[in-house]
Parts: sequence; structure tokens; C-alpha cells
Amino acid sequence: MRIANLSGRLVLVDGTVALDVHTASAGRFGPSPSDAFADWGAFSQWAQQVDVATHAQRAPFSTADLGAPSPLPRQVVAVGLNYADHAAESGLPLPDEPVVFTKFASSVAGPEVSVRLPGETVDWEAELVIVVGRGGRDIAREDALSRIAGLTVGQDLSERSVQWQATPPQFSMGKSFENFTPTGPVIATLDEFADPDRLAISATIIAADGTSTRVQDGSTDQLVFGIAELVSRLSRTLELLPGDLIFTGTPPGVGAGMDPKRFLVDGETLVTEIEGIGSIVQRFHA
Amino acid sequence: MRIANLSGRLVLVDGTVALDVHTASAGRFGPSPSDAFADWGAFSQWAQQVDVATHAQRAPFSTADLGAPSPLPRQVVAVGLNYADHAAESGLPLPDEPVVFTKFASSVAGPEVSVRLPGETVDWEAELVIVVGRGGRDIAREDALSRIAGLTVGQDLSERSVQWQATPPQFSMGKSFENFTPTGPVIATLDEFADPDRLAISATIIAADGTSTRVQDGSTDQLVFGIAELVSRLSRTLELLPGDLIFTGTPPGVGAGMDPKRFLVDGETLVTEIEGIGSIVQRFHA
Repeated sequence: MRIANLSGRLVLVDGTVALDVHTASAGRFGPSPSDAFADWGAFSQWAQQVDVATHAQRAPFSTADLGAPSPLPRQVVAVGLNYADHAAESGLPLPDEPVVFTKFASSVAGPEVSVRLPGETVDWEAELVIVVGRGGRDIAREDALSRIAGLTVGQDLSERSVQWQATPPQFSMGKSFENFTPTGPVIATLDEFADPDRLAISATIIAADGTSTRVQDGSTDQLVFGIAELVSRLSRTLELLPGDLIFTGTPPGVGAGMDPKRFLVDGETLVTEIEGIGSIVQRFHA
Repeated sequence: MRIANLSGRLVLVDGTVALDVHTASAGRFGPSPSDAFADWGAFSQWAQQVDVATHAQRAPFSTADLGAPSPLPRQVVAVGLNYADHAAESGLPLPDEPVVFTKFASSVAGPEVSVRLPGETVDWEAELVIVVGRGGRDIAREDALSRIAGLTVGQDLSERSVQWQATPPQFSMGKSFENFTPTGPVIATLDEFADPDRLAISATIIAADGTSTRVQDGSTDQLVFGIAELVSRLSRTLELLPGDLIFTGTPPGVGAGMDPKRFLVDGETLVTEIEGIGSIVQRFHA
């Protein structure tokens, strides 16, 4: 099952067609995308019965009309240093507990947005994003997957000079400029994946002249704290709320780690893709 | 004008009586406390005409029934190192820009709550809290006060061992346990204050045997970044959203700064008071 936000309305997606949930459920669910999470159990049970591909009310859609699949998260939890290969490359020890900051909610955007560069050190971080369904506190690891709505693709964009301007570092401000948290194109439920803990994840920069460079090319099997582990550990402190986003960290290959460092410039396009979910695309301008 | 959340409903308060906004406005505003912020201009205009003290529908209320005056903030911005006297005492330089972290929304609570101590290093921080009204991006300093709903009292409770357990420090996790962000008792609009930039702020610990110790006793005239300045500066990065909370930092006198350090223990009660707003009270248990 693949859920999306099409022009502000909750839809189910199959390939190139979408089904408006509010219409198809005779008003029981939707119309807002956030309505999916408020009563996730009932919604997902209903949605699993629907065959979008053959439904009389299906319609083709343009990916340009997709918004953030969870547009109003109450909490955006971002986890740092969570890829074993990235930690090894950086010479950093693996953390004992998830290293957490936030990306403020006003930075959340849809999958295809234009991003204004607020400085000269804007960097990319391809990330698998967990979308919380039922949520709760003190969730056991064995119960964690049942509290998730599904997975989406995210970019954790950062203005590095703002991030590192002070002590302690300003992760949350450096990562919360307008459209710095693009997400989408869909939320894929866990039954869509052969192995949700081993997904190819990549980021590719396309220059203004069309030249394409793959800068990140990893696998989520390198996550230090995997999907179930993160949900369980975070819920010991936080109450996870329906629609919350958990950014799970990024694999090797960010611009700040290159020699020389390399950041996004006017006219470049960034494509972030995760196996089994899809891709999101940002165009950058000065 | 004083706004509160009484048993989950938006009320206006005057002394010991409250007026249900949804009833008194014939359904135009409320019933939820968050509804005040969605259309702040119209609501505050209506509310300013109402005389709660003489209104036929006013009723006495118990402070024990008050909840968080903005119970569903989209963003909770917390500012550190923002009192000049505290920075001087700590030997720290004044920051050039606000030092920002978050307290996750699931930790937000009302003014009179019981707090479970998740560890042995739970510390207090009395804070003036700005509640955003209309909000926006790139707000000029001169325009900032018009974007605010008002001011409330907050405690920025912290589990110090969690806060400092890793590099970078885990401010957001250490400060987001259940009920670690109590707020209230009311939102006082700016016209309630002779000088909203010079308010007495204090924290007092009452031991199980009734002994009372004032641990913080400051004035908001020591704020490095004052109310208008914070709103303006934060809005250069974030879009401030209706109902957002901005915790403005704490004056000298936290437990971690004492010699020897001193933290909250089972049976203690914490009273935090700000001139012209009121006080909030937490009881701590193991």
C-alpha cells in the first residue's frame, strides 16, 4: 500500500494512478493527508482492501502535485551518526544511544520543490524516514513495527556554516530553513518490502549542464539503530505521535566529508532514491 | 486579556472566574484551546471586547483543571544561554545568535502536573515563554510584537545525565521526558504588562517537610535576546506558526551550577512564577 498527499488530499497510489481516499471511502477517511494517521488502524485496514489499479474512481496524476505525505508532523526526530560505514569512514565511535536533534516542522516539504540556498555551504543527506502510525510510549522492540505507518524518502538538507556556528552546534537551526526537509513521494507500508532493513539508498547531483554524479550509494543494512530499534528506544523518552517523522541518518558521501568539501550551487538538482519507495527531487537556486 | 485551557476548552480568565469562549462567542471561536491561534487576529479582537468579570456566563474554576494553554504547538523552540547575568556567572561569552534546541511536543504539559523522575539528575530552569499568534517568516523587529499571542510561564526540566551523555550534547532528548515541559497557568497578552521586557522570574523548591528554598530569582531585563529580537531572528530561518512556543532561556540558579550540584528528589515540589502571569507547580516522584 502506497499513501500520498496529492494537492493536499489523502490518496492511495499504484504506479501512475491515484485514488482519492475521502471519495472512495464515502467520507470515512481523509480528506487531509494527516487524517490517515489519526486513526491509523482503521484506515490501514480499509485501505488494504482497496485495489487502486482497477478502482472505478482512480485517476492519473502528476508527481509535481505531490505534497509532503505527513504534512503536519507534531515531532520530527532526526538521528545522527547512524550508519556503521559512515562512522568507520569518519573515524568516529558508534554511539551507545541514538544521537537526536530536530528539524523544525516549518521546513517540511513535498518531494519536488525548489530550494533557495541561504548560504554557500548547503549539503545533502539522503535518509530513510519512518512515519509513525499508532505511536505510543515505552514500545517494546517486538511491537515496534506495528506502530509504524510506513517508510518514505527524505533529504536532511543542512547549511553547514549555520550548523557549526556555535557551541553546542546548531543542528536544528542549520537544518530547518524553508524546504530543507523534503519528503515523499509516498509512504510505503512495510508489506511492500522484501526486507525493509536492507534498502538501497542513494543521492545524485545533476549539474546545470546535465552532468550527473552519484554522491551517496549505500544500504540501510548499515543502520546502527534499525527501524524497530529506533522506534523502541525513542519511545522510552518521547511519546511517538501519529504522523511523526523519524529521520534515520545518512550513509557516507556528504559534501562536508569530501576533500575538498563540495556544496550545492545555483542551478543544481538533487535526486534522492530509496529502493521500493521512489525518489524525491530538489532544484536549488541562489 | 488572559487565555487558558480549562479541561481542554478555550477560556478567558479573570481572577478566579473563567468564561468558555465557544459558548460566549456563540460558536465562533473554540472550543479547543488551539483554535485561539488559528485565527488570532479575529479572536483577540473579539476577546478584547469581553468583560469576563461581569459576564453572565462566567464561572469559578479550579487551577487543577488547567491544561497547557497551547497544547498542540507545531514547534517548540528553546533558547539557551540567554541571560547576561547567567552567562557572566558561568564565565561564558554572550552568543552572537540565539543558541537553539527543541523540547519535543509530547513533553508539553499543563501548569499543575506530577512528574516522574527518570533519573537522579533532574534540574529546573524557570523560563518566560513566548506564544506565537499570527507568526510568519522574516518578521522585522518592529513588527515582532504584533505576531505574538502573549506570554506564559514554563519550566524547561532537564535530565542532565541524558543531556550530556554524548557528543554533541543531547539537549532535546534530556529535556523531553513526559511532563518535562509544563506551561501555564494562562497566556497573558502584552497589554497586561507595564513593561514586558522587565518581569521578575523565580523558582522555589518546597521540600517534603514544607521547607521552602528560592533557587532562582531573576529579571527578564537580563535577556540577551529579548522578546521582539528573538521572534525576528528566529523567523529568518523558521516560519513561526500559530501556537508555537519559544522558551527564552533561564536566569542563574539551576542545580547543575550549584556547588555541590543539587537535583530534584522524590517528594519535592517546584513553583515557578513570573510577574504578571502567575505560577506553575510540579510535584516530583520517583
